[in-house]
Amino acid sequence: MTVASAHGNSPNEVFAAIENASARRLLIVALDEFAARGFHATTTRDVSTKSGLSPAAMYVHYPSKEAMLFQIALVGHSTARDRLRAALAEIDQTAGSAQRLEVILREFTFWHAEHTTVARVCEYELQHLNAEHRAEIDRIRREIEVGVRDEVQRGVDCGEFSVPDVRYATMALTSLAIDIVRWYTPGTGVTPAELADNLAVLGLKMVTA
Amino acid sequence: MTVASAHGNSPNEVFAAIENASARRLLIVALDEFAARGFHATTTRDVSTKSGLSPAAMYVHYPSKEAMLFQIALVGHSTARDRLRAALAEIDQTAGSAQRLEVILREFTFWHAEHTTVARVCEYELQHLNAEHRAEIDRIRREIEVGVRDEVQRGVDCGEFSVPDVRYATMALTSLAIDIVRWYTPGTGVTPAELADNLAVLGLKMVTA
Repeated sequence: MTVASAHGNSPNEVFAAIENASARRLLIVALDEFAARGFHATTTRDVSTKSGLSPAAMYVHYPSKEAMLFQIALVGHSTARDRLRAALAEIDQTAGSAQRLEVILREFTFWHAEHTTVARVCEYELQHLNAEHRAEIDRIRREIEVGVRDEVQRGVDCGEFSVPDVRYATMALTSLAIDIVRWYTPGTGVTPAELADNLAVLGLKMVTA
Repeated sequence: MTVASAHGNSPNEVFAAIENASARRLLIVALDEFAARGFHATTTRDVSTKSGLSPAAMYVHYPSKEAMLFQIALVGHSTARDRLRAALAEIDQTAGSAQRLEVILREFTFWHAEHTTVARVCEYELQHLNAEHRAEIDRIRREIEVGVRDEVQRGVDCGEFSVPDVRYATMALTSLAIDIVRWYTPGTGVTPAELADNLAVLGLKMVTA
């Protein structure tokens, strides 16, 4: 069983916006390979063979394995950002900082647990992107980071939170969620929801005044 | 400039206990290669060539690249564990749980920042160890985890700490330190000591009653 397929339909769900079935299949196979063996040790031949496509048919969709990594990173990071925004948009306008940050922490943790293979490749293989693609992904990463930092700052400003340094607090809060991808395997005991609940409580306690 | 050499004498310091100079040199080169390209994409030929040794001379010390990874993981994990124990042994016997946990958090964070290349390979390449070697490393990892968990539990028992679940709190505390290896490059602004100070404060706040 491959890494991604062990996680059920999770990559299919993340990559559902990619309408072409062959392009989507290539990404899911590439994700599997990158997660299992790393970007360097994966060849385009591995990906085309395991996708049941000829190299020529693969190149129609992706000119290189870097292009596949970029597409995975783009979809992964955009989806994570959009979920955070959607979760915040659903909160009552009168909610305080604690409630808003708790929603962010729960959503961000859940994402890294539920879609742990996508998130792991997004976190650990970025150094293999070319400079232009890396800049585009870093822009989305900054949007996410600034989103978390703004909530922490707002909580500090209104007295709900108290931290020695907002940058370090932001870094620590995101670490709690991201570090899940280092060890978590879905379907092996603890659920994404349980992780999200527990880490949200601990993260919130870390910043509460 | 290679990854490890960019970190000054850090790997030399960690591997100083390996007396044979060729064996030590092979480990430092292997560390560089694993960190830069991953275990899968590294060949024993890369390591022997860059060490200035013949393959035959390399095999005298290490029969395989897995043997080099195991030695790196063994030295890395043992050193981290021993530093935590030494730091705890230096604390006044009358110290409370907060003071003890703060020392652990500071020491553990400092280790992951100061020796970030060794720590990164220790965290991200373990799946490539054979079963016997993996079991030996996992034993040391459990010793470290139990050491942290016992301090959290002791603090809860005496009322200094309050957490919903000691296991999750332990996991979150270790994540704060370990996640440093994902992004940190020594010599680029923030120092290991600054990271250690800030994360120790945040971690302590997370569990304090």
